[in-house]
Amino acid sequence: MSPSGVFTADRRGRVYLVGAGPGDPELLTVRAHRLVTTAKVVAYDALVSPEILALIPDTAERLAVGRRKGTDPDAPAVHPIVLDKVLRGIDVVRLKGGDPYVFGRGGEEAEQLAELDVAVEIVPGISAAFGAAATMGIPLTHRDVSAGITLATAHTRHDADAGPPIGARVPSEGTVVLYMGRSTLRETAAALIEAGRSPSTPAAVVARATLPSQRSVVADLATIADAAERAELDTPAIVIVGEVVARRVTVRTPAVSVITDVRSL
Amino acid sequence: MSPSGVFTADRRGRVYLVGAGPGDPELLTVRAHRLVTTAKVVAYDALVSPEILALIPDTAERLAVGRRKGTDPDAPAVHPIVLDKVLRGIDVVRLKGGDPYVFGRGGEEAEQLAELDVAVEIVPGISAAFGAAATMGIPLTHRDVSAGITLATAHTRHDADAGPPIGARVPSEGTVVLYMGRSTLRETAAALIEAGRSPSTPAAVVARATLPSQRSVVADLATIADAAERAELDTPAIVIVGEVVARRVTVRTPAVSVITDVRSL
Repeated sequence: MSPSGVFTADRRGRVYLVGAGPGDPELLTVRAHRLVTTAKVVAYDALVSPEILALIPDTAERLAVGRRKGTDPDAPAVHPIVLDKVLRGIDVVRLKGGDPYVFGRGGEEAEQLAELDVAVEIVPGISAAFGAAATMGIPLTHRDVSAGITLATAHTRHDADAGPPIGARVPSEGTVVLYMGRSTLRETAAALIEAGRSPSTPAAVVARATLPSQRSVVADLATIADAAERAELDTPAIVIVGEVVARRVTVRTPAVSVITDVRSL
Repeated sequence: MSPSGVFTADRRGRVYLVGAGPGDPELLTVRAHRLVTTAKVVAYDALVSPEILALIPDTAERLAVGRRKGTDPDAPAVHPIVLDKVLRGIDVVRLKGGDPYVFGRGGEEAEQLAELDVAVEIVPGISAAFGAAATMGIPLTHRDVSAGITLATAHTRHDADAGPPIGARVPSEGTVVLYMGRSTLRETAAALIEAGRSPSTPAAVVARATLPSQRSVVADLATIADAAERAELDTPAIVIVGEVVARRVTVRTPAVSVITDVRSL
């Protein structure tokens, strides 16, 4: 028994906190692909695509551990089922959409596991911003128009849980990518304009980025919420805001049927 | 002949603008790995690791097309040798360190190729920030301390080519990752403090992230430049600034021998 009262470290399983990338299984890393296809236990979030879940061997145990809205925000980050496996000496591949350290609660999961002396490996993944940029042909930086990228959540100052207002979370220049941005797009776009971005700033909403079902719209910041509504884009979606959107080029994206509204740009 | 006076599109090669990730070949995407290992021509930057170049088949032609300091900044983005191959109908895998759309000139390369009606596919890659965060055990976001991430270059307001001052490129809150940050670290750290970040903000410098030769230091913003100098960290290096650095945990990183100076944190 260790001081923490659970099994000794040499009997514990390892946890591989693995980024599943934006959706297309081809965009898993080589390491992630190997871990998923040879896993005995895979615990996955709601954001991991069915195409990637299809890579899990039939012999492996699958655990859906995604948190739904309304889950107690103070609940431990590591799902009790995952912890139970690990403390019984079983390795777990913990698959998280995108990159495990970008939004989601990967940092908290790693912290909790480290406190229990569980060995953790972090396998980075392609975060949604980069998957969407690639299929949309939108460079996230460009010498002429953008010298940086900010990844933020699409909360607004009216959301008590969101922390600082968007003006403190987004700089005055450069590309902004909003995660989980679809449902609050109208408020977020208004907040960005209020924070100093021009209403004519080009913006793109990309739903189900990198999957064959990817759909997108492009408009300016003042009208992007209307455009996304008219196109009935579903979630998860991300929003790219900045002059780089106007510098996009048509790229070959074999898996994706991109529907782009170029009405205003 | 097309209107632009070169061969017609159906005789042109395709360009795969491929992110090579941070360095570890295991962190290539599955798609990137397949393209590199089956390529006939690979054109690569100086930032692509020798470990990844070793994956190129012996039968493939290798073209080192990295730009050195002092290259004419107004030179076309696509290297003339690459263009020559493509216009002669040969597919080219264009390998770029990290993600092709994050810094570097990937956007300009895609633009130039699109203007010539050359089919381009963008294969996203793990950008250095995410590779370094994973091996360092630093969550880039954390509900308690950071609601966003800004990727910026480490230029300062004193650099005429850098565009806006860092205060306009970095928000007042959240995690900041500086690319190409080693040589100007002292000036950039001072500029961040001047822009409102506390001198006690934790910071990490990570050189050769994800490679076996990775080395790193951790200190506060006021002393990080001294710490990096004492540790004689080489380049390329990235700098992570923010309270998340203090929330890092020890993670299992089989390939990496991480040397961390925890003097002040």
